[in-house]
Amino acid sequence: MPNAPLVCIGNAIVDVIAPAEDVFLSDNGLPKGAMRLIDAEEAESLYAKMGAATEISGGSGANTAAGIAALGGSVSFVGRVADDQLGRIFRHDIRAVGVSYETPASTDGVPTARCLISVTPDAERTMSTFLGTSVDLSEADVDYDAVGAAPITYLEGYLWDSDSARAAMMRARDVARDGGGRVAFTLSDLFCVDRHRQDFQQLAAGGVDILFANEEELKGLYQTNDFQAAIAQQRGRIDIAVVTRSAKGAVVLSGEDTIEIPAADPGKIVDTTGAGDLFAAGFLAGLQRQLGLGDCARLGAVAAAEIISHYGARPEADLKTLAAQTLAAS
Amino acid sequence: MPNAPLVCIGNAIVDVIAPAEDVFLSDNGLPKGAMRLIDAEEAESLYAKMGAATEISGGSGANTAAGIAALGGSVSFVGRVADDQLGRIFRHDIRAVGVSYETPASTDGVPTARCLISVTPDAERTMSTFLGTSVDLSEADVDYDAVGAAPITYLEGYLWDSDSARAAMMRARDVARDGGGRVAFTLSDLFCVDRHRQDFQQLAAGGVDILFANEEELKGLYQTNDFQAAIAQQRGRIDIAVVTRSAKGAVVLSGEDTIEIPAADPGKIVDTTGAGDLFAAGFLAGLQRQLGLGDCARLGAVAAAEIISHYGARPEADLKTLAAQTLAAS
Repeated sequence: MPNAPLVCIGNAIVDVIAPAEDVFLSDNGLPKGAMRLIDAEEAESLYAKMGAATEISGGSGANTAAGIAALGGSVSFVGRVADDQLGRIFRHDIRAVGVSYETPASTDGVPTARCLISVTPDAERTMSTFLGTSVDLSEADVDYDAVGAAPITYLEGYLWDSDSARAAMMRARDVARDGGGRVAFTLSDLFCVDRHRQDFQQLAAGGVDILFANEEELKGLYQTNDFQAAIAQQRGRIDIAVVTRSAKGAVVLSGEDTIEIPAADPGKIVDTTGAGDLFAAGFLAGLQRQLGLGDCARLGAVAAAEIISHYGARPEADLKTLAAQTLAAS
Repeated sequence: MPNAPLVCIGNAIVDVIAPAEDVFLSDNGLPKGAMRLIDAEEAESLYAKMGAATEISGGSGANTAAGIAALGGSVSFVGRVADDQLGRIFRHDIRAVGVSYETPASTDGVPTARCLISVTPDAERTMSTFLGTSVDLSEADVDYDAVGAAPITYLEGYLWDSDSARAAMMRARDVARDGGGRVAFTLSDLFCVDRHRQDFQQLAAGGVDILFANEEELKGLYQTNDFQAAIAQQRGRIDIAVVTRSAKGAVVLSGEDTIEIPAADPGKIVDTTGAGDLFAAGFLAGLQRQLGLGDCARLGAVAAAEIISHYGARPEADLKTLAAQTLAAS
């Protein structure tokens, strides 16, 4: 099992990225920095208002899988696309970076999911997601043999927005643990935490083994404005909790230990899309290589720094080399 | 007529851009820096070998139209997409920058064209184009009333690869001139010149009014290795000939006059895709504003410099401001 691939499960999404001014967000009722779910009709009308865009494969868990592969890790992805052009783009891109991806394409006419991302001049991204066929992810789509063999199975919180996906994830959790693997989970987004606080609190209290959150999500989970209070709430509930804090770096809680690491220097910040996804990728790739938690977090920081230095949430630079340099310097 | 939109006619293409090493080009028989036509089957197999990609609307004449609009010009585009996801992306992107685009989408099942672009570390782009439905452009797709009213109608040489498109272009040429407008034409690509040398020589000898070429294409047109010999061949045959020379700037021939302007500084060169298209955009936008030929060429140079500083062939920066700065400094 130690050599079996990690499994990442998430919504399979193509990102549609366009620059926007802040007034575009307010005019269209888009909460800055958050992810909002929209239906097909709103996706059409919002897209029509956006500027010329760039299409890049995305999806939170898929970005994490791509990052793990870019770091040399062994990983497979589970997520549902349609048999359409965007679906073929998604499949090509994730396989091209070395992720194993075998979820069959759906043929029921519901299109591949897309995330309309407005990037404001401060590099903040605001996301409006039409889930398309990805919302129909169910147990039938998951290779539970692979989950049972995986040393770590990573689930994105966004999947809790779908009843069938949530059920498939709870089974994946159980199968993974029965196989002796660990289960990692990300809170995904503050609004997502609001929608599923009770479930997420249970997961963060031992329902999974490794928790990823950013500062805002963790405070939202425990409904406090005080970061230290949120940390105190989380401590001891789970094997590992990883909390990212943007420019303030990250905090790793493990038992009574607290490991703080600084953020890596991105050079310039262009688009923060995928920062959390890639932090998780670096951390999980480190765990797969059986590194210490500090080095895992440092790999997370360098992968996150790379992703925010350019448009899109899939790595462009040679992450393996960046990782080697980071570990040599630590 | 002076206030009527320019009309640009070309293949409507979505670019699929991925970084590649030089060995990828040689392994796959891709002539560096050129555009090669491929069929659906080769498009599939080459795409499968490419790395993770970014999708950005492209197409030579469409890039030029987008550039003219970004510079504040009034312009429409004619080109054929399918009623599919890539076609909707193309339509969205070109309209989003302010280009009028009304060519109906085809519904015969042939997909929207795509251009697989490998960008090597030297920023050179090598293109393999599957023309899809764009190759079926015909007289039925062209709004000849708009062409007859246009002060300038711009045709891309790539259209000569399709019999029906070539026929539609020759009619557009005649309708444009009958309406008192000028016809501009680009040689597009050295291999394209090789395929259609006789036709292109006739066009460059007065069959159109404004010729765009780069140095290699002009030398190929007159089958000489000597740039000055090619210039001598071209001089006096046409109202305006614009020859771009990459870092060496550009030469404009008009009657006995020769105007040389230096290249604009791109800062860094990331991807040369679209340099010629955007030079043409700046030049034509200048003509639409009734600027002198030197200023037209300077607008071309600044638009070309912007486009090679990032991935993709559609402008990202505020070209209007860049243009105003350029004209103020000239």
